[in-house]
Amino acid sequence: MRGATNFCLKNKAAIQNGVTTHSSGNHAQALARIAAELGIPAHIVMPENSPAIKVRGVQESGARITFCKPTLQHRVLTMEEIRLETGACFVPPYDHPDIIEGQGTCAYEILHDMTPDYILAPIGGGGLLSGTLLAVQESSKRIKVIGTEPEGADDAYRSFKSGNRITEQTPDTIADGLRTTLGELPFSMISAYADDIMLCSDNEIRHAMLIIMERLKLVVEPSAAVPLAALLRDRSRFEGKTVVIILSGGNVDLSSVLL
Amino acid sequence: MRGATNFCLKNKAAIQNGVTTHSSGNHAQALARIAAELGIPAHIVMPENSPAIKVRGVQESGARITFCKPTLQHRVLTMEEIRLETGACFVPPYDHPDIIEGQGTCAYEILHDMTPDYILAPIGGGGLLSGTLLAVQESSKRIKVIGTEPEGADDAYRSFKSGNRITEQTPDTIADGLRTTLGELPFSMISAYADDIMLCSDNEIRHAMLIIMERLKLVVEPSAAVPLAALLRDRSRFEGKTVVIILSGGNVDLSSVLL
Repeated sequence: MRGATNFCLKNKAAIQNGVTTHSSGNHAQALARIAAELGIPAHIVMPENSPAIKVRGVQESGARITFCKPTLQHRVLTMEEIRLETGACFVPPYDHPDIIEGQGTCAYEILHDMTPDYILAPIGGGGLLSGTLLAVQESSKRIKVIGTEPEGADDAYRSFKSGNRITEQTPDTIADGLRTTLGELPFSMISAYADDIMLCSDNEIRHAMLIIMERLKLVVEPSAAVPLAALLRDRSRFEGKTVVIILSGGNVDLSSVLL
Repeated sequence: MRGATNFCLKNKAAIQNGVTTHSSGNHAQALARIAAELGIPAHIVMPENSPAIKVRGVQESGARITFCKPTLQHRVLTMEEIRLETGACFVPPYDHPDIIEGQGTCAYEILHDMTPDYILAPIGGGGLLSGTLLAVQESSKRIKVIGTEPEGADDAYRSFKSGNRITEQTPDTIADGLRTTLGELPFSMISAYADDIMLCSDNEIRHAMLIIMERLKLVVEPSAAVPLAALLRDRSRFEGKTVVIILSGGNVDLSSVLL
């Protein structure tokens, strides 16, 4: 929400004919919502196998959804057609300075309230972690920023450790929001400024979700539980330290459980 | 938490040898926690069939748990034994002025921030609703307070409508926190000051839970979803009005779902 909002507010001329993106996740919902608030059309391309809750979330904001086959190629082609037809502006999910700056407002607000020893955030495309790094750099405070990733989508971990950005992977994790591949700009920021990247397993993610939901009473999606899962795997590293964890979303379908 | 805390803070001499109660629910956890904070022992009698999450919640605060057969008679007898042995003070879950006053701090804080047209709260033993009525009476603002109850535990509804307190029922509802029977003091307060009592079905409770968890991202137990469920059954009554709903707890076992 913070990234999409910042992009739209900083590019008002470019988005006057509307906005478009291809996404099955939180970015699509966020863009649909800010477009509705600004009174411009949103054209969202979603894979035809998107979970019902995510389709519903986009629909509720009045966006126009175009379904396509669930491959990146089909998503991009379908969106290009819409862009040419409507003049809508493509709003990328993470690989753009305005998106990164918007995502960074979360850490910016945290730093206004306190000075932790560590901030932990999940990595999908890397927008949120890059924004967090940006906010910490600008504050000139000595805070360590650590990215966290599921073992089943560890492209950022491998890119960070090797110094070469991995651009292809076959993700296998319940953290559906983190299956995307690390973007180019995020890679350069993370390489330069991140303190480390830590991993966790899907089972550890499930346990962390349970702790957050049962004890904090907050609904989080698996992706948002990744930082706590990584922290719990290596507790001794953080002993006696103040750690901030960014809970990045709660886009989880509970209807099958509750109804 | 608010009721147990208020009782303990107002009865410091009486609780110096510790506190005790019989409960399988939120009151047990709340009492265990405030006792730990005050540095006094808590002796909690729990039915041997209590859900694991509730036992865990009480254990985490360092309370001493005594299990008993799951009938009211066994609960009371077991607690009486403990009381005689230890000198611990019985802290009732709802039928006491200090509990009611404590529960009322929730509405008290709400009224500090705003003046709604309605406040809706769930009814189990009636402590929370009585406290809410107390806060509204003291504020002398014209706010309608409505109690809400599951159809499968509608003793307060029937008591309110008939003017005679029903003291026995065989509850059948997923709202486990509301299976208790209306207390004597709560009955007199509700009879005098409540605007109405509204009902809802278990299916309506499940739908309301889903809305709260998916849209507000808050984990609530079925009991806490009862006010929204009752409101949604009779939407037109509240059209154009400002309605406050009290979410009374999030004590729900998600481990079977997530692990």
